[in-house]
Amino acid sequence: MTTSGEVLLSQYMAELRQEVDQALAEVTTYAAGCPQVLADAIRHILLAPGKRLRPMLVLMASDACGHRSNATIASACAVEMIHTYSLIHDDLPAMDDDELRRGLPTVHVVYGEANAILAGDALLAQAFEVVACCDASADQVVRCLQVLTEAAGPCQLVGGQVDDLRAENTVGNVEQLQKIHERKTGAMFRVSLRLGGIAAGATDEQIVRLDTYGRYLGLAFQIVDDLLDEQGDVEQLGKQTGKDTEHGKLTYPALMGAKESQDLAADLIRQACEQLEPFGETAESLRQLAYFVLERNN
Amino acid sequence: MTTSGEVLLSQYMAELRQEVDQALAEVTTYAAGCPQVLADAIRHILLAPGKRLRPMLVLMASDACGHRSNATIASACAVEMIHTYSLIHDDLPAMDDDELRRGLPTVHVVYGEANAILAGDALLAQAFEVVACCDASADQVVRCLQVLTEAAGPCQLVGGQVDDLRAENTVGNVEQLQKIHERKTGAMFRVSLRLGGIAAGATDEQIVRLDTYGRYLGLAFQIVDDLLDEQGDVEQLGKQTGKDTEHGKLTYPALMGAKESQDLAADLIRQACEQLEPFGETAESLRQLAYFVLERNN
Repeated sequence: MTTSGEVLLSQYMAELRQEVDQALAEVTTYAAGCPQVLADAIRHILLAPGKRLRPMLVLMASDACGHRSNATIASACAVEMIHTYSLIHDDLPAMDDDELRRGLPTVHVVYGEANAILAGDALLAQAFEVVACCDASADQVVRCLQVLTEAAGPCQLVGGQVDDLRAENTVGNVEQLQKIHERKTGAMFRVSLRLGGIAAGATDEQIVRLDTYGRYLGLAFQIVDDLLDEQGDVEQLGKQTGKDTEHGKLTYPALMGAKESQDLAADLIRQACEQLEPFGETAESLRQLAYFVLERNN
Repeated sequence: MTTSGEVLLSQYMAELRQEVDQALAEVTTYAAGCPQVLADAIRHILLAPGKRLRPMLVLMASDACGHRSNATIASACAVEMIHTYSLIHDDLPAMDDDELRRGLPTVHVVYGEANAILAGDALLAQAFEVVACCDASADQVVRCLQVLTEAAGPCQLVGGQVDDLRAENTVGNVEQLQKIHERKTGAMFRVSLRLGGIAAGATDEQIVRLDTYGRYLGLAFQIVDDLLDEQGDVEQLGKQTGKDTEHGKLTYPALMGAKESQDLAADLIRQACEQLEPFGETAESLRQLAYFVLERNN
């Protein structure tokens, strides 16, 4: 990436993040019926500074296809809400037992376990509500909800997390690890790209290409995540490091070494970018984002 | 209710229950990607003998409007899946800490806390998937998902549960208790009726009447639930009794006495049935179900 490219991407990403942050703040301004403690617990973590990678992927995918609809920003909010619900539940004492997230104490540390479970539940249901109630065509809304509900369900996001927990302290191999992360991380990356495509009215071929880009990007993201957990800085990451080793988790560096993991991530990013060729210039931000994922330090 | 009416209702309810049980078994036959332990945890409680009240309300509401569509049985599955997810999470040690449900040990007792949280999460996401993927018109599917996601969200089901937990060991009044149960129990009763109406292509007036019936029925159901917790039989109920007193929960009998609670429930049932008058004969099962709720012993 050129220096001017980096500056452009960083400006563009800041704009997209601001757009997403504002939309998330709006959808979590609750009317009567929502207890204050629940609203506070949800907003504590949802509105904390996050990378907003998944919602950015939705917006960038729509942009790559040359059109945004009302389903674009609704889907962007939904994927961030689902990602955040999964963080809240994964951080619980019964799961990964983490105390730091997005630079803040985790939801259960501040609001207690019961409220953390319920805040996650509420975010999951509301994520689908945001899409169901957006001002787009019924056909588009149904297609978005079909792919989104599947990605968040027992065979994808939740199934991946179950297998990730079960793989702790076991002897595993790279294929097994990849199978976990294709569901635990990959499903939400892929569906973010698909949603952006569907919301833009993309062709089936475009959606398949976006989906494949998302698949490679998701795996690369997870490899870098494992490397950062081993080598990263708590302050920059905003979450605890060394947790994978502590929990005896399967990780890429543990299974194949740090250098080989880094090389694999770089190779996946190259393959991701190949999928974008037919899109031309409109996919430039997705291309640059892929390299940002590879080189990120948080 | 006459004796022949009782026999007819009991036959009809048995038929509806069988229809729902079969549909639930089908949607939880998972393909690859869903870990066996997750499928087992979900099916352990979802397929255990339940009253199936909420899905029966969906089917009966469509029948009252003279038409079932594919959205009817999909919505019936969805409300039972959402109800079951809420039971799994409410039973967790961090919440009500219950060990018996539907006559079986609770999910966290058998499969551990992490798997119980994740089984609930998976059921919630999949409930919406079942509706999103059903073979009905996109307009109907979107309307169903709009009301269903709202009912399961922070201002309704989840908000009610948060306030219910917060009200433990506090001095409360009947208004406060009603506000909790209108969200914790009432929202899912009401939406079951609305879904049945929407799936049947009912008029707005019919849907409002069904919704109001559901509101009265839900409150009556909760009052009877409180009475059963105080006086009921563990074996018949299939769950622990006396838990409300143990947890210092607000209940109707504690706030207004057992006799007055029973009278209030009977009055609510009468009001519920008034809403059904314009439907005539097609609403007979909803009418009889209301009296079944009042007189139930499990």
